[in-house]
Amino acid sequence: MRFVDIIEKKKNGGSLTREEIHDWISGYVDGRIPDYQTSALLMAIIFRGMNEEETFYLTDEMLRSGDRIDLSGIEGLKADKHSTGGVGDKTSLVLAPLAAACGVKMAKMSGRGLGFTGGTIDKLESISGFSAELPREDFIRQVNEIGLAIAGQTGNLVPADKKLYALRDVTGTVDSIPLIASSIMSKKLAAGSDVIVLDVKYGSGAFMKTPEEAGKLAETMIRIGTMAGKKVRAVISSMVSPLGNAVGNSLEVIEAVQTLKGQGPEDLLQLCMEIGSLILQETGKAGSETEAKEMLSAALAEGSALEKLRQMVIRQGGDVRLIDDTDLFEKAPLLTQVCASEDGYLESIDALAIGNLAMRAGAGRARKEDQIDPAAGILLKKKPGDRICAGDVLAEAYHRQSLSAEWMRECKAAFVIRKEETKPVSLIHSIL
Amino acid sequence: MRFVDIIEKKKNGGSLTREEIHDWISGYVDGRIPDYQTSALLMAIIFRGMNEEETFYLTDEMLRSGDRIDLSGIEGLKADKHSTGGVGDKTSLVLAPLAAACGVKMAKMSGRGLGFTGGTIDKLESISGFSAELPREDFIRQVNEIGLAIAGQTGNLVPADKKLYALRDVTGTVDSIPLIASSIMSKKLAAGSDVIVLDVKYGSGAFMKTPEEAGKLAETMIRIGTMAGKKVRAVISSMVSPLGNAVGNSLEVIEAVQTLKGQGPEDLLQLCMEIGSLILQETGKAGSETEAKEMLSAALAEGSALEKLRQMVIRQGGDVRLIDDTDLFEKAPLLTQVCASEDGYLESIDALAIGNLAMRAGAGRARKEDQIDPAAGILLKKKPGDRICAGDVLAEAYHRQSLSAEWMRECKAAFVIRKEETKPVSLIHSIL
Repeated sequence: MRFVDIIEKKKNGGSLTREEIHDWISGYVDGRIPDYQTSALLMAIIFRGMNEEETFYLTDEMLRSGDRIDLSGIEGLKADKHSTGGVGDKTSLVLAPLAAACGVKMAKMSGRGLGFTGGTIDKLESISGFSAELPREDFIRQVNEIGLAIAGQTGNLVPADKKLYALRDVTGTVDSIPLIASSIMSKKLAAGSDVIVLDVKYGSGAFMKTPEEAGKLAETMIRIGTMAGKKVRAVISSMVSPLGNAVGNSLEVIEAVQTLKGQGPEDLLQLCMEIGSLILQETGKAGSETEAKEMLSAALAEGSALEKLRQMVIRQGGDVRLIDDTDLFEKAPLLTQVCASEDGYLESIDALAIGNLAMRAGAGRARKEDQIDPAAGILLKKKPGDRICAGDVLAEAYHRQSLSAEWMRECKAAFVIRKEETKPVSLIHSIL
Repeated sequence: MRFVDIIEKKKNGGSLTREEIHDWISGYVDGRIPDYQTSALLMAIIFRGMNEEETFYLTDEMLRSGDRIDLSGIEGLKADKHSTGGVGDKTSLVLAPLAAACGVKMAKMSGRGLGFTGGTIDKLESISGFSAELPREDFIRQVNEIGLAIAGQTGNLVPADKKLYALRDVTGTVDSIPLIASSIMSKKLAAGSDVIVLDVKYGSGAFMKTPEEAGKLAETMIRIGTMAGKKVRAVISSMVSPLGNAVGNSLEVIEAVQTLKGQGPEDLLQLCMEIGSLILQETGKAGSETEAKEMLSAALAEGSALEKLRQMVIRQGGDVRLIDDTDLFEKAPLLTQVCASEDGYLESIDALAIGNLAMRAGAGRARKEDQIDPAAGILLKKKPGDRICAGDVLAEAYHRQSLSAEWMRECKAAFVIRKEETKPVSLIHSIL
């Protein structure tokens, strides 16, 4: 079969067979099928979609394009958590030690960020000395000994996704649920965990704009994972406003540490409890939601979760004094306050706008080669639902270069203030 | 604007501006915009279409990508005719001399065929000595002096279409009315005539499968031509069965000569009269359809149309004795008859099947580098509507290599025979 016939088939609404998807992905990775045919097929998929089987075959063929991490050297069920990304999302920094404190083996591979702020790895590297470059054996030994490790992706994991994603990015073919789901799940499956809990975000700061779309994406990923023999659960959560109060790299580490010390923002804690509860139940550490949440609360109250973070930082070469006293983190030289000019109630904080503003203040990368300023970012001083008086500080920006008047205007505009009291969107939309 | 934003705009159903289409086509031709972005945009156009303005801008930008033929050296209104292609379509060979005999300046640029049989140029080259490689000045002088010339395309006409068409062919993005219309019309506009009459075919042997689709394509091309200041008309005609009786290169030339001698098949004559009538009216040579058809009939009866073909063949170096006595054309060494095995009435002859069979008998090219056998082809001995008795010869194949049993079976199956008398599809569907 000529590849153009496969494109025509999808264009005309047909379903691709396993063999056709195999020919596509293997041919694309080894260069027999050129970019221009793949981009035409991707655009046809945007319009025609893919059914369950096609989406699973695509994921599986991408997975087979590269290495898979063998976690069999770690005893018991291994758990992983994935967020579809948002602004102020430092969940992994809290959750990994929290679940580890409850006896789960958290073997987390993470990426660097391209966007609003750094990724989990970039955030951890704001702890001086911390290294995410763990050789495979050290990674496995560490998880076996202390129950958790967070490391950067190594090896040749899912090269098909790397090549496809680069093409999708420049051909307008990113926003397709089967393509997004297979991209995420191929990487999660390659990372080798038995239990995967997905945090699928919706809202201005997320890829999916509505809870319905986020739900569809979550269902698709759950089906893929189940077909691959994994236990997969998902939380659908709001990214209408940023998560927590801190948006930046060291700022978010500080907030995660505060949360592990029982002094974190309510929304972040709530999300960690929900995801943690799913992880504990799916790994069999807890028999019910109630039991799971009691275990998680105890791990926070007793300090065992914080202790797990301390152990991980020490094992991975970081300066643990920063965890014990977060005032020791280097500060950005400039602090600018953004104040309200009207009375009212804060309905929401535009997550997309705050993400962009944090990036422009130095917290994120616009291009791969950009440097991140670990101390830069934004602290939100008001949260949705709060009463606002003119003159109140809405946010504090931490930065190195001066901020433009435009930046200040946009930052103020990100705070949506209403005259009437409004009920903010609840953080957790549903659990699948 | 990044080009990916233009792709996204079309994907989301937006209309592209003149400037965006300019950036696309000029960037694609000079290599700034890669194939993989263009193919994604083409696929988005397949699904989203293009409105009138976009289609005109696309045509005009393609036209501007190369040379345009200046026919101002030819006095009066110049006319051109274009067929969307079919099986046994030798209309131009009859029509150009016929219209020229009525005083119209027929300056026809034509292509070589890739498909069932050769194109008009390949057919003419079955006349020994005939050359379609006319320098621009000779082409213009010949049209001025004898009223007609048929030459191969020279110069750098519409390079954007050449590049785009090659990409569309391998990315499943051929079948879009705005893309087909702009491809055809950019070349017709570049060829410089004032009056363009389009013969838009539908049926198994044509690109458009239904008269409705053919009508839409014709309307789109008429609008483009009108927006470009040309007089454009169209005939929607059936390609359910092949046109005339001959399918092949010299076989079709012979049939065209017979038609100019008043001994051609009825359907071919009818189509030439309809298209010729439109050309005479639009160039102002006739004031009404009745007058036009009287002029055309007279040119056939008096032999002036045949004389025009003789003049053209002589001027372009061909052996005119072949026109005067078509028995002198070289014959294919083998003749095979295909006979009916049942009684009944012939409903239709599958044009697509006959086209493929003629190509396999040597009349056409599957690839650019293939050689055409000028004497090979198929003569249909029965036409739709005919009574058939078992044993009747349905077709004669002219060929050099022996034909397979498969070929014979397929050829017989192309003749759709019913027990009941049926009314064949009428050739002319409508005139626009």
